[in-house]
Amino acid sequence: MIKAGIIGATGYAGQELVRLLLQHREAEIVWYGSRSYVDQKFSSVFGNVFQIVEDICKGDDLLALSEEADVIFTATPQGYLAGVLNEKILQNAKVIDLSADYRIKNVATYEKWYGIQHKSPQLIKEAVYGLCEINREQVKKARLIANPGCYPTCSTLSIYPLAKEGLIDMDTLIIDAKSGTSGAGRGTKVPNLYCEVNENIKAYGVSTHRHTPEIEEQLSYASGQNVVLNFTPHLIPMNRGILITAYAKYKEGTTPEQIRKAYEDAYREEYFVRVLEEGVCPETKWVEGSNFVDVNVKVDERTGRVIMMGAMDNITKGAAGQAVQNMNLMFGLDEAEGLRFVPLVP
Amino acid sequence: MIKAGIIGATGYAGQELVRLLLQHREAEIVWYGSRSYVDQKFSSVFGNVFQIVEDICKGDDLLALSEEADVIFTATPQGYLAGVLNEKILQNAKVIDLSADYRIKNVATYEKWYGIQHKSPQLIKEAVYGLCEINREQVKKARLIANPGCYPTCSTLSIYPLAKEGLIDMDTLIIDAKSGTSGAGRGTKVPNLYCEVNENIKAYGVSTHRHTPEIEEQLSYASGQNVVLNFTPHLIPMNRGILITAYAKYKEGTTPEQIRKAYEDAYREEYFVRVLEEGVCPETKWVEGSNFVDVNVKVDERTGRVIMMGAMDNITKGAAGQAVQNMNLMFGLDEAEGLRFVPLVP
Amino acid sequence: MIKAGIIGATGYAGQELVRLLLQHREAEIVWYGSRSYVDQKFSSVFGNVFQIVEDICKGDDLLALSEEADVIFTATPQGYLAGVLNEKILQNAKVIDLSADYRIKNVATYEKWYGIQHKSPQLIKEAVYGLCEINREQVKKARLIANPGCYPTCSTLSIYPLAKEGLIDMDTLIIDAKSGTSGAGRGTKVPNLYCEVNENIKAYGVSTHRHTPEIEEQLSYASGQNVVLNFTPHLIPMNRGILITAYAKYKEGTTPEQIRKAYEDAYREEYFVRVLEEGVCPETKWVEGSNFVDVNVKVDERTGRVIMMGAMDNITKGAAGQAVQNMNLMFGLDEAEGLRFVPLVP
Amino acid sequence: MIKAGIIGATGYAGQELVRLLLQHREAEIVWYGSRSYVDQKFSSVFGNVFQIVEDICKGDDLLALSEEADVIFTATPQGYLAGVLNEKILQNAKVIDLSADYRIKNVATYEKWYGIQHKSPQLIKEAVYGLCEINREQVKKARLIANPGCYPTCSTLSIYPLAKEGLIDMDTLIIDAKSGTSGAGRGTKVPNLYCEVNENIKAYGVSTHRHTPEIEEQLSYASGQNVVLNFTPHLIPMNRGILITAYAKYKEGTTPEQIRKAYEDAYREEYFVRVLEEGVCPETKWVEGSNFVDVNVKVDERTGRVIMMGAMDNITKGAAGQAVQNMNLMFGLDEAEGLRFVPLVP
Repeated sequence: MIKAGIIGATGYAGQELVRLLLQHREAEIVWYGSRSYVDQKFSSVFGNVFQIVEDICKGDDLLALSEEADVIFTATPQGYLAGVLNEKILQNAKVIDLSADYRIKNVATYEKWYGIQHKSPQLIKEAVYGLCEINREQVKKARLIANPGCYPTCSTLSIYPLAKEGLIDMDTLIIDAKSGTSGAGRGTKVPNLYCEVNENIKAYGVSTHRHTPEIEEQLSYASGQNVVLNFTPHLIPMNRGILITAYAKYKEGTTPEQIRKAYEDAYREEYFVRVLEEGVCPETKWVEGSNFVDVNVKVDERTGRVIMMGAMDNITKGAAGQAVQNMNLMFGLDEAEGLRFVPLVP
Repeated sequence: MIKAGIIGATGYAGQELVRLLLQHREAEIVWYGSRSYVDQKFSSVFGNVFQIVEDICKGDDLLALSEEADVIFTATPQGYLAGVLNEKILQNAKVIDLSADYRIKNVATYEKWYGIQHKSPQLIKEAVYGLCEINREQVKKARLIANPGCYPTCSTLSIYPLAKEGLIDMDTLIIDAKSGTSGAGRGTKVPNLYCEVNENIKAYGVSTHRHTPEIEEQLSYASGQNVVLNFTPHLIPMNRGILITAYAKYKEGTTPEQIRKAYEDAYREEYFVRVLEEGVCPETKWVEGSNFVDVNVKVDERTGRVIMMGAMDNITKGAAGQAVQNMNLMFGLDEAEGLRFVPLVP
Repeated sequence: MIKAGIIGATGYAGQELVRLLLQHREAEIVWYGSRSYVDQKFSSVFGNVFQIVEDICKGDDLLALSEEADVIFTATPQGYLAGVLNEKILQNAKVIDLSADYRIKNVATYEKWYGIQHKSPQLIKEAVYGLCEINREQVKKARLIANPGCYPTCSTLSIYPLAKEGLIDMDTLIIDAKSGTSGAGRGTKVPNLYCEVNENIKAYGVSTHRHTPEIEEQLSYASGQNVVLNFTPHLIPMNRGILITAYAKYKEGTTPEQIRKAYEDAYREEYFVRVLEEGVCPETKWVEGSNFVDVNVKVDERTGRVIMMGAMDNITKGAAGQAVQNMNLMFGLDEAEGLRFVPLVP
Repeated sequence: MIKAGIIGATGYAGQELVRLLLQHREAEIVWYGSRSYVDQKFSSVFGNVFQIVEDICKGDDLLALSEEADVIFTATPQGYLAGVLNEKILQNAKVIDLSADYRIKNVATYEKWYGIQHKSPQLIKEAVYGLCEINREQVKKARLIANPGCYPTCSTLSIYPLAKEGLIDMDTLIIDAKSGTSGAGRGTKVPNLYCEVNENIKAYGVSTHRHTPEIEEQLSYASGQNVVLNFTPHLIPMNRGILITAYAKYKEGTTPEQIRKAYEDAYREEYFVRVLEEGVCPETKWVEGSNFVDVNVKVDERTGRVIMMGAMDNITKGAAGQAVQNMNLMFGLDEAEGLRFVPLVP
């Protein structure tokens, strides 16, 4: 059994980790870390695990945890892990970080977009960007995983096939993203209140959202060129789910068949990425509670553009599910172990 | 492997059966019955199982199905199964009926509340009311299960301990129930449209809802007296979940300790019924997608009443989950096999 | 023009007052009081009035306000007004209090249920309980109005005809109430977050909710006897709306016609209370954004009970709308002035 | 008093016309046309107007109606009005058509995108596209108004200032739109059911939506060049509201100041179009139930693009409100008469 510890277990991503690991046949949770709820029963915070979890929330002593655990998941505020992680901890346990601290290879870019000084830049190079479908082999050997952001996961997987095959003009790329409200976290602020989100839609972080450079970096690797794009997230009145609608000019002479084939080739062997049948638009409902990403592409010959679409559960594949997928790879397990949920409908 | 067939697989209860059976280690689905979608891919109706289910929807030839299956689930309109079920089918396969056809022992009562003539009254006596927590031993030996209604499941389990122990005056019993909209089914009518349900709440079927006599019958068995009660359901703008709030006078001299103990005694050994800690109110969110029923009771000494509360997922424990629980018992499996989901939050 | 000031203008009830008074032909707002947003533009808090309201939020200096205003609305935390109100202020301006401070005539009852010492008990007697349909004449002459609570308004109006006519046994009265989330206010706490409320339903304050003694007092006046009842509120995933479902035994010999007639007689002349046609259940959607209360009653001869139902917008008739209705009466205007909105659908 | 008749009064746009006209000081409704509900009380279909409207639904005899009414609103399926409208009717009454029949000047374009043969192409030329902010003077003199589509209204107004001033490259224009579910109408089909829409988001009609040529035509007029663009609508789990997020390259050398000034100049005198303060993103909540369109623009110098945003209530400004605005202009009234609602929050 893999001994797992979680720092930040009482956030939405943290409790999703709890849900997934409790149902995982090869893992057990040995540490429910939550600074806000220290000494309280975890099940008094999340009643869904009443009579399932008897544990009391602990603090965030990462070193102590690393001595008890084989793997540590950190679902913590930006900058936290970078401030405390060190070689000693990494020798004790593998670390899967759900924050952004080690996702961006260029420290200056991180510091500019996040407005934080990076406290352990020496570890960035070692960290593997844990998008399993693309970096599978590196993940298997990693000690430190930078678990991708929710928007970057869905965006990258939706666009990757055409970026990689060079079928689109990367300079024309625009990503319009929509997310359920769990993505905003469990912090108490007015804009997250029920009556403020319900019956409402708005864009936010327009041209300044921190996931922008992360997406740009990944698509730069895929396309072999420096990508600069527009990314606009929107807040949607629903709990879970991300939908990506991305636009780009396809290169002259490209046929619809080539475009479709790029998706099918890229994901033929991937369990978690489902290329939908032609003409079917991804819907977040069809992936709720699962680790699937549903993608599809529409060619608009009238405008010379492709519309790339992807739907995903933001706290499963976009956070905790992907983290468990990484754990599976790092410990030599079947990649889908504990993640073969049929999505919940309705 | 248990071979399972489903008639009515494309309704909400039917597709929940699909979800649960696909994740069940001892069962496989051999027949996706759906008159409306015959010859169409099941996954074209419910995209959540795209690339998981390749089957085509079949019709409702129950006899043919009984020759292929070990167990048949019928999630069909009232009166359908009573019209086609016969001894031959029951010799071929066990039947778990999610409709109301065999729930009520008194034919006249059924015919009055449902306004349908019962076509196979000779089978009613044999049918076992599949509320496992109460009728476990009979379920194990049954060929034909009347799977309880959603409201009756939650109502009965919420009230049962006090009815059985004789601690409340059954003549004062009032049940105020609230259900998510999946309970209204997938039929296309104006009151089920998004814009009619959203941002709205209303009572319906006041004093005439068909689940009333079913609840009365079960609580009559529990209390040993003829129960007549008020039952008022309400439609709530959410997908899943039922909440029961029930009121009754407790008998003079009854102490809060006796009341609490009745619940603890009744459900100490039950995995799926969770008696919450004192003062905690059940919430549907904590049971979503699971087979749990969370119950609790509050004693109001000011008024001499108890307020009994229960929360449940109407299409899991209230329909498909309970049906699988029954199947497990009928086939000698662990009762919770395939049903140990951690509820989905948020 | 009536000069109106609002203390607590940036809560949900406060901003509804703003919405209503802006559309009122005989009133103008001279003071937008909000301690949390002092010196900020009101329209930066509530974008709906961008380019409509240019005012800056002010503090809560009630005396200064009373010198500028003809009427003061206080949508403030319990205990606030009782702590600052005095004769001087009341000589300057009429006061309509949306908090509970002057609703309950018995100080001890107030102090017990609210857990607060009442700082100006000498003013309680003078305060008029502003349920216009019942206390119209006293309202017209009042200086100080205790604007009724949301649940008490809907509960009282739904039950009043039968209580007054003595057609029900008041000892059997049970009120099961459901409210949209705006009733919980705009405070930032975890249970009010979108992801906690959405797709969820729960009871709260079971047998301890502070509106209980208020309802009991009003129904005691109506029935001429001391009423003790059960009141259970539930939180519903919607913004606006309250639904009341109340149960009581009707007295032996009472006919359905007498019961219906009691409602028709009580509300024949009332513009804001609509007695629905027989068999039609009130729905909150049909009153959204308006000052209407839709009521109806169902007689269940099987159980000897009536089911009384009422639907209302909790922040219009349940708070700000009723406050404006009171203002209209106090200033000799048409009671419905500025309140003749057609409810918003869908 | 203007005598108004409505054909299609029981759809969502139709009943919004009812709501608005009932509150209009210079108009009265003389005909509630609804083929589906002929001879039923209008208030039995829409309970919000119980005791306000006593009328019975009538049929769709346009000629008879034209003899009773000064203005006819048609909220009817595509092709209906084109099939029945004639000179005689237009001599009797002004017509404001909420369908698409007369919006597109090029018959071939209409017939291609709508798949319908146009039955009265001779009237297209005369019809005025009723986007008041742009075509005010023609509207005043019109007999026949093509009331703009919901998406085209919000899209055109959000983009118009930059298109008109020639500050963006129209070939790079992409519109990503999001709409509440009332836009899908009140028809009974599975995709409109509560449980299918709730907790879900999807794109639909990708590159084929019928509002595309309408938007292209209007922006072609504005920019003086032939515009071909991508338009992608999405279905959002909320009742009301449209949000537009549009992207385009701005022309080299254009400054943020020029861009902002274009908006301010275009809408300085417009009551219903509110240019938000810099950095504030439009939210549908702030315009709910009103005729406002809130717009703003963000300049992204990193990518050389502008992000243009607009929020609007799809059934008010996007349908019925704009129709009333047109009526006001056609009858020489204040353009905002009956439309000065403060948006409903929350």
